[in-house]
Amino acid sequence: MASVNEHYLKLSAGYLFPEIARRVQAFLAECPQFSNEIIRCGIGDVTEPLPRAAVEAMKSATEELAHRASFKGYGPGTGYEDVRRTIAEGDFRSRGLSVADDEIFLSDGSKGDCSSIMELFSHSNRIAITDPVYPAYVDGNVMFGNTGGPFDGGGYEGLVYLPCTEANGFLAQIPCAPVDLIYLCSPSNPTGTVIPREQLAAWVAYARKHRAIIFYDAAYEAYIQDPSLPRSIFEIEGARECAVEFRSFSKSGGFTGVRCGYTVLPKSLCAWTDGGQQIPLHPLWTRRWNTRSNGVSYAVQRGAQALYSVDGKRQVAELVSHYLENARLLHEGCVRKGLAAWGGTNAPYVWVRVPAPFDSWAYFEHILREARVVVTPGAGFGRRGEGFIRISAFNSRANVVEVVRRLASVQ
Amino acid sequence: MASVNEHYLKLSAGYLFPEIARRVQAFLAECPQFSNEIIRCGIGDVTEPLPRAAVEAMKSATEELAHRASFKGYGPGTGYEDVRRTIAEGDFRSRGLSVADDEIFLSDGSKGDCSSIMELFSHSNRIAITDPVYPAYVDGNVMFGNTGGPFDGGGYEGLVYLPCTEANGFLAQIPCAPVDLIYLCSPSNPTGTVIPREQLAAWVAYARKHRAIIFYDAAYEAYIQDPSLPRSIFEIEGARECAVEFRSFSKSGGFTGVRCGYTVLPKSLCAWTDGGQQIPLHPLWTRRWNTRSNGVSYAVQRGAQALYSVDGKRQVAELVSHYLENARLLHEGCVRKGLAAWGGTNAPYVWVRVPAPFDSWAYFEHILREARVVVTPGAGFGRRGEGFIRISAFNSRANVVEVVRRLASVQ
Repeated sequence: MASVNEHYLKLSAGYLFPEIARRVQAFLAECPQFSNEIIRCGIGDVTEPLPRAAVEAMKSATEELAHRASFKGYGPGTGYEDVRRTIAEGDFRSRGLSVADDEIFLSDGSKGDCSSIMELFSHSNRIAITDPVYPAYVDGNVMFGNTGGPFDGGGYEGLVYLPCTEANGFLAQIPCAPVDLIYLCSPSNPTGTVIPREQLAAWVAYARKHRAIIFYDAAYEAYIQDPSLPRSIFEIEGARECAVEFRSFSKSGGFTGVRCGYTVLPKSLCAWTDGGQQIPLHPLWTRRWNTRSNGVSYAVQRGAQALYSVDGKRQVAELVSHYLENARLLHEGCVRKGLAAWGGTNAPYVWVRVPAPFDSWAYFEHILREARVVVTPGAGFGRRGEGFIRISAFNSRANVVEVVRRLASVQ
Repeated sequence: MASVNEHYLKLSAGYLFPEIARRVQAFLAECPQFSNEIIRCGIGDVTEPLPRAAVEAMKSATEELAHRASFKGYGPGTGYEDVRRTIAEGDFRSRGLSVADDEIFLSDGSKGDCSSIMELFSHSNRIAITDPVYPAYVDGNVMFGNTGGPFDGGGYEGLVYLPCTEANGFLAQIPCAPVDLIYLCSPSNPTGTVIPREQLAAWVAYARKHRAIIFYDAAYEAYIQDPSLPRSIFEIEGARECAVEFRSFSKSGGFTGVRCGYTVLPKSLCAWTDGGQQIPLHPLWTRRWNTRSNGVSYAVQRGAQALYSVDGKRQVAELVSHYLENARLLHEGCVRKGLAAWGGTNAPYVWVRVPAPFDSWAYFEHILREARVVVTPGAGFGRRGEGFIRISAFNSRANVVEVVRRLASVQ
């Protein structure tokens, strides 16, 4: 008799973003006259065209496949060598950070990576997760059997939640209880907070002392404009002994539909067996990719590589500037309306306290109905997200200006 | 202290194909004068250009991303609806098989799928795997912790191996010991054997009786030309209650570098909790994809869809005919040389008994050195593969003719 993975049955309700889509559809079924008026600032999905450098590289790579002499079949499971070199050079070595080409592992996006990385670890690790948090970290761990059952009101037994609240500036504090695996996201999805250098150094020191590993999600690093803020955990000395970094081209190059990201897993990173043996993780991660994947689509790899060309870099910078100005306008609009708001600088998300008497799903529904604007209820990111909404800056300028106008008029 | 998944440490040696690549490199380092002479019939990788219909669709989809009005961001985690409809219609409903659009789950290839499917199941299942077998099935299960340690000479404790030998025509027999999850591959990688209808019906009857589930890998179904042979397990009545089918565009459309495949997981497929509760797997598989993926690259999906157009179908048929004629020539060449050979009809692989006194790695080395032809040692596919080699028909006609010529002259 085929026996099911019962951990799946612990998953509460739907995954957040399909649930938002379902509620928007329900509203439109009820009020179809608003279907052209809806502006989506919920799911953090880019809206502006793909950089021309990537488009041309992908079309040209596709044409290569049409000719026997330039045809490419199976590529390396972890990405083409020259693509990995471009990335290691462009994102790390050119900034003085030591990352080897083969420490870059290409993937179809960091959503998958932040779950897949757990495959390298046993079920006995104590896992620290910020609250609020990007829900894929949590749901992936539930499915793996790394948690207990759900709590009423959100969250799962067996995880160590690190509260990110107004009181601590939405920055997770190092826990008293020892933990082994730590998810950090900077700039944060959903709060838009960036972890300052000294705090990140404290995390690295903690991880090294306790032989813990930090999963550092830097999917939004391109939005960091303040040079004093770290864009990579590898800017911190000692991080090569205790961190994996997740990167994505989704929000820098507009690749949400193209699908490409990567992990940086240093050769010096180790975990331990129950018997105390120290095991380097780089060969395991390599084996994982070679066994479970044949790498990222060839044309997509060439598209990602083109983002590092002179034109590509300029086009990425323009995209990022565009969304950052959106974020500034949204933050300003919220503040002008008298709402408490955070983020929106060095980050594409604005984190807004919902006014009384609403809770976050109720305010989500209120804004949907009154302003025809879709936001993300903070409660969807965890219990500490209750009382907030996240507004995404990924939109056209015209839509953002209109959202600000409409929000101003909502009671 | 971060605790490692110790199951990885059971994995013996390298994954087969990187190991072959390593040995070829070692030979060329020793004899660099042969580097232009090597012909690769080892890894089953296509060589001929991508069908023009797919190339044009992918280029056009890429250009869509360059314009705001046609830009696509995140797609559905399981694939675009119209792409799933094209596939369900083209591969199943047009052949009288009942498969709904949303029973198609797009992925970046079936190598990943045949491991990922295990995520839905507990560790207590008894898993049946043919021997010889595509090594990714086994290695994926080792990494998941579904096996014990390695046996000397290949294989792992805790799996139920189904011998495929000359005596049984390389067709796995239904085991006496009860099993819960069964991997079948038809046409078989590596032996090129196709499971006949009555035998597949016996497997379905077994699975239904024992509430087992069959993972049916049909990655090479396009090569089945004999209309009496089943191309899908869903041609067998009752399979919708006991089977998942894996399909790939790698060998039909030449997508090994493009990366696209799909699973068919019927809504009527269930597994059971320890408490005996029956759990439909379709919502779990959907949740798995939505949590761990944002779907296949947009342009790749459009490329796969284009393989079902009138031009696309013709171009796929031409590709398949080309490789099938190669397979016929290779099989004929082996037989003419006096070697016992199977497969090569309705399948792109020829399975050849190695002559005395060689074992399969020794014959691999012999052919590499004497004929500068790379094949795959059967032992790489399991203990029952010892004494055989697999020759892949994925090559140009000129190379295949040359391989036949060179093999004829090898002592």
